[in-house]
Amino acid sequence: MSRFDAVAAARGDRPFDLLIRNVRLVNVFTAEILPSDIGIVGNLIAAVAPANTLGPAENVIEGGGRYATPGFIDGHVHNESSMVTPAEWARVIVPKGTTTVCTDPHEIGNVLGLPGIRYMLQASEGLPLRYYVAGSSCVPAVPSVETAGATIQAAEMAELLSWDRVIAVAEAMDYMGLITQTGNITPIVEKGHEFGVAIQGHAPGVVGPHLQAYLAATGPRGSDHESMMPDEMLEKVRAGMLLFARVSVYMDTSPSLVGAMQQVNDSRLFGFCTDDVFPHDLLREGHLDFGLRRIISHGVDPVRAIQMATINVANYYGLHGHGAIGPGYLADVLLLDDLEAISVTDVIVDGRHVVAGGEWQVPLEQPIPPLLDNTVRLPKLDEADFWPTLDAPDGPMQVNAIDMSQFLTSLKQLELEVSDDRVRLPLPDDICIASVVPRHGQGTTPSLAFLSGYGLQRGAVASTVAHDSHNLVIIGKDPASMLAAARAIAEMQGGFVAVDGDETIAALPLPIAGLMSPDSMADVAAQLQAFAAAVTQLGLPPMIPLTLIILALPVYPMIRLSDKGMVDVATQQLIPIAAG
Amino acid sequence: MSRFDAVAAARGDRPFDLLIRNVRLVNVFTAEILPSDIGIVGNLIAAVAPANTLGPAENVIEGGGRYATPGFIDGHVHNESSMVTPAEWARVIVPKGTTTVCTDPHEIGNVLGLPGIRYMLQASEGLPLRYYVAGSSCVPAVPSVETAGATIQAAEMAELLSWDRVIAVAEAMDYMGLITQTGNITPIVEKGHEFGVAIQGHAPGVVGPHLQAYLAATGPRGSDHESMMPDEMLEKVRAGMLLFARVSVYMDTSPSLVGAMQQVNDSRLFGFCTDDVFPHDLLREGHLDFGLRRIISHGVDPVRAIQMATINVANYYGLHGHGAIGPGYLADVLLLDDLEAISVTDVIVDGRHVVAGGEWQVPLEQPIPPLLDNTVRLPKLDEADFWPTLDAPDGPMQVNAIDMSQFLTSLKQLELEVSDDRVRLPLPDDICIASVVPRHGQGTTPSLAFLSGYGLQRGAVASTVAHDSHNLVIIGKDPASMLAAARAIAEMQGGFVAVDGDETIAALPLPIAGLMSPDSMADVAAQLQAFAAAVTQLGLPPMIPLTLIILALPVYPMIRLSDKGMVDVATQQLIPIAAG
Repeated sequence: MSRFDAVAAARGDRPFDLLIRNVRLVNVFTAEILPSDIGIVGNLIAAVAPANTLGPAENVIEGGGRYATPGFIDGHVHNESSMVTPAEWARVIVPKGTTTVCTDPHEIGNVLGLPGIRYMLQASEGLPLRYYVAGSSCVPAVPSVETAGATIQAAEMAELLSWDRVIAVAEAMDYMGLITQTGNITPIVEKGHEFGVAIQGHAPGVVGPHLQAYLAATGPRGSDHESMMPDEMLEKVRAGMLLFARVSVYMDTSPSLVGAMQQVNDSRLFGFCTDDVFPHDLLREGHLDFGLRRIISHGVDPVRAIQMATINVANYYGLHGHGAIGPGYLADVLLLDDLEAISVTDVIVDGRHVVAGGEWQVPLEQPIPPLLDNTVRLPKLDEADFWPTLDAPDGPMQVNAIDMSQFLTSLKQLELEVSDDRVRLPLPDDICIASVVPRHGQGTTPSLAFLSGYGLQRGAVASTVAHDSHNLVIIGKDPASMLAAARAIAEMQGGFVAVDGDETIAALPLPIAGLMSPDSMADVAAQLQAFAAAVTQLGLPPMIPLTLIILALPVYPMIRLSDKGMVDVATQQLIPIAAG
Repeated sequence: MSRFDAVAAARGDRPFDLLIRNVRLVNVFTAEILPSDIGIVGNLIAAVAPANTLGPAENVIEGGGRYATPGFIDGHVHNESSMVTPAEWARVIVPKGTTTVCTDPHEIGNVLGLPGIRYMLQASEGLPLRYYVAGSSCVPAVPSVETAGATIQAAEMAELLSWDRVIAVAEAMDYMGLITQTGNITPIVEKGHEFGVAIQGHAPGVVGPHLQAYLAATGPRGSDHESMMPDEMLEKVRAGMLLFARVSVYMDTSPSLVGAMQQVNDSRLFGFCTDDVFPHDLLREGHLDFGLRRIISHGVDPVRAIQMATINVANYYGLHGHGAIGPGYLADVLLLDDLEAISVTDVIVDGRHVVAGGEWQVPLEQPIPPLLDNTVRLPKLDEADFWPTLDAPDGPMQVNAIDMSQFLTSLKQLELEVSDDRVRLPLPDDICIASVVPRHGQGTTPSLAFLSGYGLQRGAVASTVAHDSHNLVIIGKDPASMLAAARAIAEMQGGFVAVDGDETIAALPLPIAGLMSPDSMADVAAQLQAFAAAVTQLGLPPMIPLTLIILALPVYPMIRLSDKGMVDVATQQLIPIAAG
């Protein structure tokens, strides 16, 4: 038994399995750096003692004065955003120091429901990455205005929370539902209270009485990773929320967070997470190590920053034995050449020396559990489905359109020509058509809207990564190109395509739920880069298709297109195409 | 439903049940003091907002700028040491600010086993005091050298941990058993790991490899309340132990603890407890409030001290919703006139304003559950049982005795006269006889030993409070007085007596398990004071009978007397009376 042997080694009656000798230990209990040895037996830390005093051991890692920190914990992340399987994700993020994640599988949950979440758990079994799951609470994100592939309500949440490795209720995005104690989210969060787990918050801009109401609803284990401004952060942490710094290339809240931290006298309620990181960013910039570099560069003491990415998050989730280096803790240890640069050289997970000098030391094979069905189940389509009908006499007509020229979209009124009850083609230069095609077998017809300011000059782009319901979103200049894009996507069983007429000029197949690839992250990143380059042929700037994948997200400001139609996010009402 | 209404009040759609207006809130999340209002609905804090901004409310407490802190949590305590029932204990300690306790019922556990612990849970149901229990792990303390009224092993621990309100494994006193992974304690602690609860430590003077081994055994949720010296404390907190300041009149470790705190950069692993406080000390000096005054007087910032007695302990036990004032937390709030003096004026528990201006506002009645049996089940006794036999020829003989002249007893060799195989009476001036009479129906005969330096000149004193096995301990000058003391104790069904010849000159009946009185704490304290005064007639200094109640404690240095005989605490071996 591992604990029995660990105790024996600690008291000196048998050798350690592994000794990490002479490190500068980042002690997250006391916020000190102490020259130390670390003795490991099985998957446990058996003893921590002053440098060069422990031994003997079967195997020795010479620390040589390097820093030793606990393995990093990502407090809120979506595996699916990496577009690869859990094993491939682990292969990339573990060498960067992430040894524990709390992932919210709400992308695959929106496609497949509980079987999708079970798939992620199965696909992560036995990995050298502690893979915990937060039960997705908002599937679909806004039931009244969109259709996902599955629905998670209170009964499903109770089922999820009974599963091994499911440790929290995931981000409660429907904050108005909680504040008003209405909707699916209220009984779902009650299940979290029954199971006694942390309730991840999601409350962008929620302050004042609404914040108090939100926390009265989510209870004493709330958190937030959506705050942008120091004053909002300060109010939240004072109210007892664990505040996650969300740091990635895409979104870096660390300057604000540093501002908030400097105004309080205790940092235990500051945590760390990445949320969504795309494959090319993971490969190029890193994972939590990137965020730690950022927040340290903004003036946070490195030891405090390490606490944020380790013990503070472990305490929030009640992950006892995680997030610190001490006797009796799980043996997840990083060695770093430099504490400010967070340059991880070695990673020990569960007592195994899995990464040395940045290189994997153990095989990392994980069979991909078979998914039963093609998840791209489109209705029968023809060109007419992508040619907007306009109920007006021939001639000019005022229509509502989504203006894409700013990242936060807006409503814009346009004049278009009507001919035989349809918009006259070709469309004016700045205008194109967007469609959300139901891909979960709903059997409904595609929704349609006009876009301005998108830049597309010809052809079409399409994606089944379309947060959060992950229907098929297509933006095209003409119905024929859009139909071609839909057919290409169906053939690949999901992913991204760019088409020019009949020709597919770039494609990234994501056959796992239309969200993930079975291939390596390097391959996926290369295909994404090729996609970004190819779309310049269609008049678009070279881009990773971020605006495409959030066009259908009905909780993201200001105007979105769901499978049911145009959505005014502020009011959660559908907007007709005909203006006025 | 309380939460539903709390959320409604927080967002402004209904009045609060109770509003505490205009306080200086001690925010334990951020270690700040912030002018605030606190809105309460049912048993929940619904909202915390800047002072004089919340309302309306059904009832208002005008804070008038007083300090508001979370209710204090006693992290390790034995209710039985107060010698009163849970309800009476609550009546005294709640007005002093203690709203939550984690009590280890190992005194009654040693007498009655699990039924005794269930009794304490029943007797505390519905009190305005959150009464949590740590499952007693060392019943008896040292099975090899003493006999208690019950035995708790791994199966009983599993049963205990399945009960409501049992939240931890209580102090693992058999630290050598854990370090060597032997004895009852190892499988008992494994049950704690299975249930995922905190494992309270008890490791006086344990440092170095033994400390690492102890923590490898108790796991990542260890603690200690027995450390005396700053260096020992520092080593423990760096190893991840929650370190309880144990502060009472009897035992104040706060100066050392302050020394340790000043050397580290994070105080989250410093907690607070009282352990054992006698009734007169509770009444005169206070409970956690006394300890907080002490540690603040030694230089700890009051806000840090409050964190130690609230959120730090709540986090250690995973008592979510306890230990802080924030929306969604349980409504346990104190109002204090002065933060350094910890002068508590008002106490709100579970949303009820139970104490105002120091006075109880609600009835506090708690029927005492009936205990089935008299717990003082002595063998048939006569004078000869208290007259030591000495297997030697008539004349002088060297005997081993317990020297009581120092608080930590020692072994002393004496010359006594033998006559007809018994010690010759009367005994020399400085010598008296001690006996531990089995009182749990063991059916064995009393153990006997000689004491020197105790001071008793005549008569006898006796107690069924005799840690931890709580047999009947008697110290007397002659067998007749000792027999009289035993009979008086049996008649009272336990407690303390002092006898002079046949006359009982002082008595404190403790008929609840021989440990507690059904009377008020004031009555008990008065009887104890009368006892202390009366024993001067017997030649003893006026004393609360502390040396008496720990004479039989075989884990307390250096020489003790159990029901099996004299014990060398260091070696856990029995010592014969005959010396040499």
